Amino acid sequence: MIITLKKGAKPKEIAAVTEKIKTLGYKPHVSKGKDVTIIGMIGEYAEKYKDAFEAMEIVEHISEIQKPYKLASREFKKSNTIIKVSRGVEIGGKKVHIMAGPCAIENKEIMFNTAKIIKDAGATILRGGAFKPRSSPYAFQGLGEKGLKIIEAAGEKLHMPTISEAMSPEQVALLSKYCDIIQIGARNIQNYDLLRAAGKQPKPVLLKRGMATTIKELLLSAEYILSQGNYNVMLCERGIRTFEDSTRFTLDLNAVPVLRKLTHLPIVLDPSHGTGVREYVGTLAKASVAAGADALILEVHPKPEEALSDGPQSLLPEQFCALVKELDAVAKAVGREIL
Amino acid sequence: MIITLKKGAKPKEIAAVTEKIKTLGYKPHVSKGKDVTIIGMIGEYAEKYKDAFEAMEIVEHISEIQKPYKLASREFKKSNTIIKVSRGVEIGGKKVHIMAGPCAIENKEIMFNTAKIIKDAGATILRGGAFKPRSSPYAFQGLGEKGLKIIEAAGEKLHMPTISEAMSPEQVALLSKYCDIIQIGARNIQNYDLLRAAGKQPKPVLLKRGMATTIKELLLSAEYILSQGNYNVMLCERGIRTFEDSTRFTLDLNAVPVLRKLTHLPIVLDPSHGTGVREYVGTLAKASVAAGADALILEVHPKPEEALSDGPQSLLPEQFCALVKELDAVAKAVGREIL
Amino acid sequence: MIITLKKGAKPKEIAAVTEKIKTLGYKPHVSKGKDVTIIGMIGEYAEKYKDAFEAMEIVEHISEIQKPYKLASREFKKSNTIIKVSRGVEIGGKKVHIMAGPCAIENKEIMFNTAKIIKDAGATILRGGAFKPRSSPYAFQGLGEKGLKIIEAAGEKLHMPTISEAMSPEQVALLSKYCDIIQIGARNIQNYDLLRAAGKQPKPVLLKRGMATTIKELLLSAEYILSQGNYNVMLCERGIRTFEDSTRFTLDLNAVPVLRKLTHLPIVLDPSHGTGVREYVGTLAKASVAAGADALILEVHPKPEEALSDGPQSLLPEQFCALVKELDAVAKAVGREIL
Amino acid sequence: MIITLKKGAKPKEIAAVTEKIKTLGYKPHVSKGKDVTIIGMIGEYAEKYKDAFEAMEIVEHISEIQKPYKLASREFKKSNTIIKVSRGVEIGGKKVHIMAGPCAIENKEIMFNTAKIIKDAGATILRGGAFKPRSSPYAFQGLGEKGLKIIEAAGEKLHMPTISEAMSPEQVALLSKYCDIIQIGARNIQNYDLLRAAGKQPKPVLLKRGMATTIKELLLSAEYILSQGNYNVMLCERGIRTFEDSTRFTLDLNAVPVLRKLTHLPIVLDPSHGTGVREYVGTLAKASVAAGADALILEVHPKPEEALSDGPQSLLPEQFCALVKELDAVAKAVGREIL
Repeated sequence: MIITLKKGAKPKEIAAVTEKIKTLGYKPHVSKGKDVTIIGMIGEYAEKYKDAFEAMEIVEHISEIQKPYKLASREFKKSNTIIKVSRGVEIGGKKVHIMAGPCAIENKEIMFNTAKIIKDAGATILRGGAFKPRSSPYAFQGLGEKGLKIIEAAGEKLHMPTISEAMSPEQVALLSKYCDIIQIGARNIQNYDLLRAAGKQPKPVLLKRGMATTIKELLLSAEYILSQGNYNVMLCERGIRTFEDSTRFTLDLNAVPVLRKLTHLPIVLDPSHGTGVREYVGTLAKASVAAGADALILEVHPKPEEALSDGPQSLLPEQFCALVKELDAVAKAVGREIL
Repeated sequence: MIITLKKGAKPKEIAAVTEKIKTLGYKPHVSKGKDVTIIGMIGEYAEKYKDAFEAMEIVEHISEIQKPYKLASREFKKSNTIIKVSRGVEIGGKKVHIMAGPCAIENKEIMFNTAKIIKDAGATILRGGAFKPRSSPYAFQGLGEKGLKIIEAAGEKLHMPTISEAMSPEQVALLSKYCDIIQIGARNIQNYDLLRAAGKQPKPVLLKRGMATTIKELLLSAEYILSQGNYNVMLCERGIRTFEDSTRFTLDLNAVPVLRKLTHLPIVLDPSHGTGVREYVGTLAKASVAAGADALILEVHPKPEEALSDGPQSLLPEQFCALVKELDAVAKAVGREIL
Repeated sequence: MIITLKKGAKPKEIAAVTEKIKTLGYKPHVSKGKDVTIIGMIGEYAEKYKDAFEAMEIVEHISEIQKPYKLASREFKKSNTIIKVSRGVEIGGKKVHIMAGPCAIENKEIMFNTAKIIKDAGATILRGGAFKPRSSPYAFQGLGEKGLKIIEAAGEKLHMPTISEAMSPEQVALLSKYCDIIQIGARNIQNYDLLRAAGKQPKPVLLKRGMATTIKELLLSAEYILSQGNYNVMLCERGIRTFEDSTRFTLDLNAVPVLRKLTHLPIVLDPSHGTGVREYVGTLAKASVAAGADALILEVHPKPEEALSDGPQSLLPEQFCALVKELDAVAKAVGREIL
Repeated sequence: MIITLKKGAKPKEIAAVTEKIKTLGYKPHVSKGKDVTIIGMIGEYAEKYKDAFEAMEIVEHISEIQKPYKLASREFKKSNTIIKVSRGVEIGGKKVHIMAGPCAIENKEIMFNTAKIIKDAGATILRGGAFKPRSSPYAFQGLGEKGLKIIEAAGEKLHMPTISEAMSPEQVALLSKYCDIIQIGARNIQNYDLLRAAGKQPKPVLLKRGMATTIKELLLSAEYILSQGNYNVMLCERGIRTFEDSTRFTLDLNAVPVLRKLTHLPIVLDPSHGTGVREYVGTLAKASVAAGADALILEVHPKPEEALSDGPQSLLPEQFCALVKELDAVAKAVGREIL
């Protein structure tokens, strides 16, 4: 951590800072320039005292040198993490996985039909929401546990691992019982009780970046889960909020190489939410695979115009089937594979 | 709701849309232009079917006419809501209230000292966090219930209503016991379980806008609380995330007249988080009062450099005292008052 | 154009709107709902009167139905535009072109060396700036016409078309003389004199989207050029400004399918500026090709640490050569080709 | 400037950096921590070599210590600059000035009528655009020199200084002839030829921040003007682009205290463009004065629904007259005055 003092700092003021550093058990490095004095405070966890120094009147600016997260960092674990899900599915290796299914679990028929279609097309993980975070209190909120039983049965029948979203610690317990991967949604990226609950159970977690979450904050939220003992966390970019309004969100593909550099955790992309528009999903899915995604999560619905949620961004079955073949070609071009 | 079809829509496709409108119990209004056909579907709650129509291939674009929230809207209640807190404090009337105190409750001494100082200066509500949402799992997380007992005692002694933040339904229950106003923080703006829990208890709620929450979404989140029966909700603008990095967030004062137009709920401003920098807080506080804020929430700490959280944006006691006098002058200039 | 009136609009107020529509030579379509009245004003160029209606007190909201640009739109020209540059290079067809070279033209040696390297690697167009837009007045501003002579000579020697940036109408004239493609930079996206000047000469133009330019505005800026008679315009996404600070900008790949839908003009991606960080450029370049870019523009410098501009994002020659092979594989996976 | 090296930097790599610093005539300060080495390079203009160091592979991160602008900085000139305009008007002192008038100069009658109204209400400077930057090439582009003659005559008759916008160096020359203040608009904030042209003539310049311009970039653009010898520059915040779509832009009032700290130049606020909606302008105008604006620029039009540009955000004459009185009360509450 590097502390820059205001111009014209007096010896007494400089001493106040260096004393404080010593009191905290660190060693200060003082560099005096013609106008400006900077003081280095280097050592493990120095960054956690950032606020305390920033609050001093004489301090102009503080630069962090070390990362505020640890277990999630590439420094902590050099090799990519490979998460063993279930039924032989491993995320983070050569194979790029496709998670697909309807946005919300609506009924047994739609779920089983969709599961069959996506499995045949090449998807390996079945998605569907039982608890739906909806902006409006008047919109469909999901089938709850009844829905979880449907997706569990569909996964069982088609021999596919399943993923669904939890919005509270109680739902984490339910999800942990019925599903193979627990999703934490963008709106809950800083719901710390939920993150801790997900960290205290053993099922893999897919953590979605919030609409205005920096990559650093995403990794800090992952750290909440990891610090509870669950190391099986995947990070999912699903679109950030920008000024552009021709798409629902802006899928931030820059995040892929940045995350790849900073963390060992697998990276998942969600082009369905990232664009919000069916006809743009395929293009961004291809770009995501080319960028090195370890998995994609895609919404597919046999009759989008009758879907209870997110119909406009759901792919039609035939679109999905054609897309997976295209994605496989792109995957192979970058040394990965889907089919 | 107005549905614009893609260019060259055929009679059969137009009929599919009008049939769907009729099936849902609405009446379609078709306007055919030279190239474009638009179909009006006007009536209560038509907007909740937006997704279903947007998912149809022939639909180009949908414009909402009615607002998706109801109880929070100015149409529902024309006059400004005045919230009766406790100890005679009413928010939403002529008096502009100042909520002040340290970011986190750290110990009895600091809380009592700060409470005395801000009360003497003119503040009417005491703030302090017992449960702290922190980006890092390694940062100070608050004293919990012990902290709530401290703020309750300080409020009791100084005869001031108190406000503190809840991050989960369980904490709502605790807060409802110890404090007079329950704060829901920016990170939990779409934590719907929490919103519903706050709506099922009687204490007033201060709901903070998230870092990337649109005003429409803020009102929808308020609607979650109102729809459970608790009508005592204040909306708090606390800075949004933009590209500008010279302040921690960008306090969005445009939100004040927009909210005033759209809703009857009281409006609170948080210049401490909105700027993140002590020396900018006073200026934005004055601007907030001039814009018509019903209350301000400000961080004050006797020794910011020793604060366990948010020291850099906490006002010093003497700065706070001087500021309240300035704010009162501004309030009087716009027909309100603080002192 | 659809005009929604405020609730409770009176017959007289409705008549004022319909009269105004008739006066302008259009036919109004009135739809009265229980609470809300909407009035359609459909016809060519109705949108240009948007402001006039929006300024009426009784008007609540206006939705545009037709696009405000014409020549740039897919409706105007259904098939993709293929731009014939020179020396047999055509942009917009099956072949994905790579424009490469140093950010700024520094001297003959670097330019000729770099040109040789990139040509051998598979690039088809040589880039280099003679006039540099720099945030600081104290930074290197480019060699000017001397630089243009260098890039012209390098293009001549290696038989490659060249591209360089113009920042004023006078520079457009110079560029038109020395180079094959005229670049208009992100900072000048709404410098209308410049756009008109580029539209009045015959050389192809590469128009870069600004940091906060919506896609609609980008197409309107293109329309400025097209409306002067120059139809050879390529649109370049080069990163937009968002809250995320781990990259210099956020390359908006969503823009690719949106532009592909809305316009017939070729689409170019700039991953060098879009990320601002050398080690992220390759990943985003692959994603760009997978998304369907017609060309990429990349910065390459033999000694980035000695570059006078944008060194941190310039690829090393060996990185570039390896990357082009990878890009060709991705291009082939999506039915295109580079080599 | 502080250079942080990547973890595990070897002595040879450290030496390469320190050598480079010495070669450039600076003295390196090396601080070695357990894992990380940081190197200070402090001295005038060190920051201009930032790119060169950032381009070195071993460099992890660079923090700027000194500001990249000089003449615009508070360090360069401690006291606030007061700009003498003409006819006794001085901007930057106790009096808060109101610049008002129609967006575009449309004809003599409207301009003279409006000028009379705003002068009587308390405005001191007359605004009106002769050259209009319009997103669409098909929109009204302004009357040009004919318009300048009209505004000059109106200013003459009512004894008011005038302000109008220049979009090219040629227009700067015209403006310098007919008007008292030259406005450079948001779209031209980084049109460096234009900035230099404005810096080479003597009339005061009002420089508007771009929609996505950081405060640092705004000051660098001002530096372009100052560095040519014209020190009479005012900085105008007019709304930045964010995700919020209930207003046209987000007026960034945080910018006021930040600019006040960093620069001695006068600060002007534009609530008309900053909100884009007539009924929100007054509230933001009051907030702007409370925040310490030195001047406001406001759009007023006698018949906004007939205005050729920006009608929706133009105040009606009676609204303007009432507003100025309210603004004067707020100004007096913060130790300033308007009337």
